Amino acid sequence: MQLYSYFRSSAAYRVRIALNLKGLSYEYLGVHLLKNGGEHLSDSYRDLNPSALVPTLVDGDVSIGQSMAIIEYLDETHPQPALLPADPAGRARVRSIAQIISCDTHPLNNLRVLKYLKHELQASDDARNAWYRHWVTLGMGAVESMLAGSSATGKFCHGDTPSLADLCLVPQVFNARRLDCDLSAMPTVVRIDAACREIQAFDLAVPEKQPDAE
Amino acid sequence: MQLYSYFRSSAAYRVRIALNLKGLSYEYLGVHLLKNGGEHLSDSYRDLNPSALVPTLVDGDVSIGQSMAIIEYLDETHPQPALLPADPAGRARVRSIAQIISCDTHPLNNLRVLKYLKHELQASDDARNAWYRHWVTLGMGAVESMLAGSSATGKFCHGDTPSLADLCLVPQVFNARRLDCDLSAMPTVVRIDAACREIQAFDLAVPEKQPDAE
Repeated sequence: MQLYSYFRSSAAYRVRIALNLKGLSYEYLGVHLLKNGGEHLSDSYRDLNPSALVPTLVDGDVSIGQSMAIIEYLDETHPQPALLPADPAGRARVRSIAQIISCDTHPLNNLRVLKYLKHELQASDDARNAWYRHWVTLGMGAVESMLAGSSATGKFCHGDTPSLADLCLVPQVFNARRLDCDLSAMPTVVRIDAACREIQAFDLAVPEKQPDAE
Repeated sequence: MQLYSYFRSSAAYRVRIALNLKGLSYEYLGVHLLKNGGEHLSDSYRDLNPSALVPTLVDGDVSIGQSMAIIEYLDETHPQPALLPADPAGRARVRSIAQIISCDTHPLNNLRVLKYLKHELQASDDARNAWYRHWVTLGMGAVESMLAGSSATGKFCHGDTPSLADLCLVPQVFNARRLDCDLSAMPTVVRIDAACREIQAFDLAVPEKQPDAE
């Protein structure tokens, strides 16, 4: 398998954790979002991923350009260890936590959005940082409520083994810290992030340990 | 089952189509996003859905507050007709198309985001409309490339039966038309939208036929 990735991409980070947890080796292909006018915007990368976003996973003749679809695919083709619980209600809970991050939080703070705010809307650095923190606070606050308010929460987001929800939580917390977001009202999120980061599969996926890290 | 919905919510619209396709009856509970200071922001609704977004599906003691998690749950608990193909590669393709819409397009144009642009960033009506059209053009352009470039595309996004991808496509096209987005470069999207709308399950889910429609 090949993973088109950018070390700092939160969506690619999720997939790197999944591949590591499954024990799957892969070729790391860096796609630099800032150099060469944005390597993800090249015609050759667009042929692979029409959204011009990272990551893309290539597995033989299968090419998948959305991180959540990639992780579900890996879970279906390499079931152990499972990244979703067996029961539909549990699966729905894990997917909901993951989607609060992957749908409602991360896309608002993606590089292309921050660029649009700067160039098209002339938003200042302060205004863009406030935007970033606003959506992190809302999204991760909702995740905290779901986690703190449920007996299904264990050492990790759902019970005592890592799931798709944790794969989304850790990269989002990483981003939140990089932008100095206040996580003091989110003790469950912070506790689970720390528990995850003790696992080698999570540790090896951190941005600073990737081949294209700066 | 109960569905907390707002007639114009694109995410709720997806779930209404799924419920109709599965032949599941449900109680429609309107949550007005504009009246009473936003009914989704009330404490009682937040208790149900910490993200304070619609829709929420309640099925006995299971409550799910993310549209994509709801649809996967319905597909797991009521498998016929299937909304995802049987093979992992096909499932990944359908989920990818759905996620281009549900992660990369729709969340950027949600009501709360447009409000932030207006109130916090003082973006004009024109600037907000340009923002809206920008993300629709990018997202639906990527969907068009995926559809037009693949032999897996049939009468619908994946083969000749509606899938999760079509459930996301139709509400997004509805929104795009409401905001006068130019869809002329997206003939496959437009063709599939028309094919879907001939199906009663899609037709009964349109915003104007909901109990809370204005």
